[in-house]
Order: sequence, then C-alpha cells, then structure tokens
Amino acid sequence: MERHFAEELNGLKQKLFQMGLLVEGAIEKSFEALVERSEDRVKEVLENEKVINQLEIEIDEKGHTLLALVQPMARDLRLITMVLKINTDLERMGDHAVNIAEKSQYLIGQPSLGIDFPLNDMADAAQKMVRDALDCFMNENVDLARKVLENDDKIDDYNDTLFTDMVALMEKEPSAIRRALNVLMIGRNLERIADLANNIAEDTIYLKQGKEVRHHFEDHGS
Amino acid sequence: MERHFAEELNGLKQKLFQMGLLVEGAIEKSFEALVERSEDRVKEVLENEKVINQLEIEIDEKGHTLLALVQPMARDLRLITMVLKINTDLERMGDHAVNIAEKSQYLIGQPSLGIDFPLNDMADAAQKMVRDALDCFMNENVDLARKVLENDDKIDDYNDTLFTDMVALMEKEPSAIRRALNVLMIGRNLERIADLANNIAEDTIYLKQGKEVRHHFEDHGS
Repeated sequence: MERHFAEELNGLKQKLFQMGLLVEGAIEKSFEALVERSEDRVKEVLENEKVINQLEIEIDEKGHTLLALVQPMARDLRLITMVLKINTDLERMGDHAVNIAEKSQYLIGQPSLGIDFPLNDMADAAQKMVRDALDCFMNENVDLARKVLENDDKIDDYNDTLFTDMVALMEKEPSAIRRALNVLMIGRNLERIADLANNIAEDTIYLKQGKEVRHHFEDHGS
Repeated sequence: MERHFAEELNGLKQKLFQMGLLVEGAIEKSFEALVERSEDRVKEVLENEKVINQLEIEIDEKGHTLLALVQPMARDLRLITMVLKINTDLERMGDHAVNIAEKSQYLIGQPSLGIDFPLNDMADAAQKMVRDALDCFMNENVDLARKVLENDDKIDDYNDTLFTDMVALMEKEPSAIRRALNVLMIGRNLERIADLANNIAEDTIYLKQGKEVRHHFEDHGS
C-alpha cells in the first residue's frame, strides 16, 4: 500500500509535468504566431487549449482520489494540495497564452509597427520562468526556485520599458494606438504568466523549507 | 469527534467569509479612491492588504489541519480543497484591488478626463459578483451561482465599451493617453476580479451537483 501510494503520487507529479510542458508549448506558439505572422500557430494554440483543459480535470480528480487515501502526514498532504494549486495556475497560464494568440491574430492583420520593442526578450524570459518553475517544483530545487523569484523583477522591468515605448509611440502616431494597445496587452499577459510561475516557485520553497515566503516577494503585476 | 469536525469545518468557512468581506471592502475602497480622489482611501487599501495576506495564511493552515483529520469522504474533502482554492482566489482579488488603488493614485494627481465612461457601473457589477459568489458558496446556492456566471458577460460588455471609449479618446486627445491607459488598466483589473468570482461560482456548482462546469462558461479575460 505504502509503495503503491508513492507510485501513484509520482504518477500525479508526472501528469502535472506533462501539463506544464503543454502550457509552455502554448505560450511559445502564441508568441510565434506574432513573430511569424502565422494564423496556423493561432489555431494550434486554440486547439491545444482543449487538451490542457481536459488534463486539468484529470489531474484534479486524480489529486482528490489520492488525498482521500493519504495518511495524515503533513508533507504528502501539502504536496498533493500544491499539485492541485499548480494545476489551476498552469491552466490559467494556458488561458493567457490564448489571450496572447488572440492579440497576435489581430496584429497579424495589421501593418507592422516598424519599431523595436522588448517583447521578444520578455517572452523568452517568461517562458524560461515557467520552465524553471516547473523544474524546481518537480525536483524540489530551492536554489532554482529563488532564481525564478529573482527573474520576476526582470519581467517587470521589461514591462515598464514596454509601457514607456508604447505610450511614446501612441503620442507620436495616433493611427498606431490600437496596435500599440494590443502589444501592451500581450505584455500584461506575459507578466501574469510570470506571476503565476512565481507562485509555483514560492510554493516549492514552502514545501521544502516549511517557511512562508508568500507575500515577501510579492508583486501585484498590473 | 464527528461533531467537533463539523464545527471546525464551519469555523473554516466562516473565516473564508470574513476574508471575502475584507476583499470586497478593498475593492470598494480602491474604487472610492478614484471617485472621491482620496489619498486616504488608497492608504486604507494598502493597509488592508496586510490583514488579507495574514488571513490567507491562517485559512491555508487551518484548511490543511482539517484535511489531515478528514475521513476519506469525497464531499468534505472537496469542500476543504475548494476553501483552499477560493482562499487563493480571494487573495488575488485583493492584489487586483491594490492595483486599482495604485492606478487611482496616479489619476488623482491628474486633471479629470472630463468624459463619462462606464467604469462606475462596471465596478458596481464586479463588486456584486464577488458578493454573490461568496454568498453562493457559503449557502451552496446553485441558482445564485448561475446568476454570477451570467453577470460575467455584462462585465465583458462594459470592458469592450471602455476599450472603444478610451481608444477614441486617445486618438482625439494625445495628451490624455497616459490617463486613459490607467483607466483601461483599472477596467482590466475589474475584469480579472470578475473572472475570479466566476471561478468561485463554478466551484459551487461542481460541489453541489458534482458536474464539471469549468471550461463551459469560460472566458479568458484579456
């Protein structure tokens, strides 16, 4: 029974990892849609979402089944409730990827803004945060978790720069306002994705060290 | 023991309700800050946040203590994991209230935009959704939960109108761009609050009917 439970718990974590990979892929594709001006990529993100939603329900049910079997030992309990929480957070990241794909779809149909802005680097940084957050949870790696938390500041800096750039562009070029707003919204969605990755890293530290770090590294996004 | 457990579970729900009232108050105050142009209200929201964060940790711990004691009966289990989830969602609503207060603080220091836009009605509707979502969960009222889900469309309509109004204003009046952007961001935060209230209503229906309604009423916000 003990061994069986450990296997089941491991299976649950593996399913969460699989969910994480799908979400990571969705974020990447949603941004590729913009860079490659590809309607196909937009469609892929929308298709992908159904799979993510189905997987969320599966993980949720499997998690609850295991919770019902768990011995009242604080650590396994915490691990399972964290899987449930991260599961929700990953699904919400998937929603943000859909939002990005939708804004990208709008932008694909418009003339290019013709300026450089830091959205590419920001998307890379956000994707890396998601990958690292997932890795740090799977391997209970506190050092990596702390790196994720540090990277969140970088995302906020990118977002501030993006805001300044877009306001300057809008003030100079009123015909670009709608496009610039869509770019800004993509930035906000990336920021929210980074916040959710942050939460996973905080949870990992709590799980490993029993120390409450939530609200210490807090940033409210926008 | 049974009776003791029922009392403890009720105590947990009451604490969650208390948390909900605080968050509701924070949303109201964050918006009053804007309407009354009151720096004091901004400060109140920031002060309030500390209490909300503390209460989140308390509820989380109490929930885990109860989970460790629960008999493996599916329903109590589900109820407690939902309390944990709603607890996180309420805390995030609190963060959005802080964001609104910060945008309000910027706007207070600026000349009025001098036009009517539907932010007031939108804030009222979002607050009502939060109140109803909390009530429907506390009383396991499925009819009210369905009303919450319906109201979410209203918020999206307000947000679309707000977007159109703000773009028109920005195109006409470049000096208003920064202010209009802050108004837009307040709208997005209200929309996120409404989405989180939506989640609570969906959870309530699931708890009561065992039916999965998530992803059926889905809306990704922005």
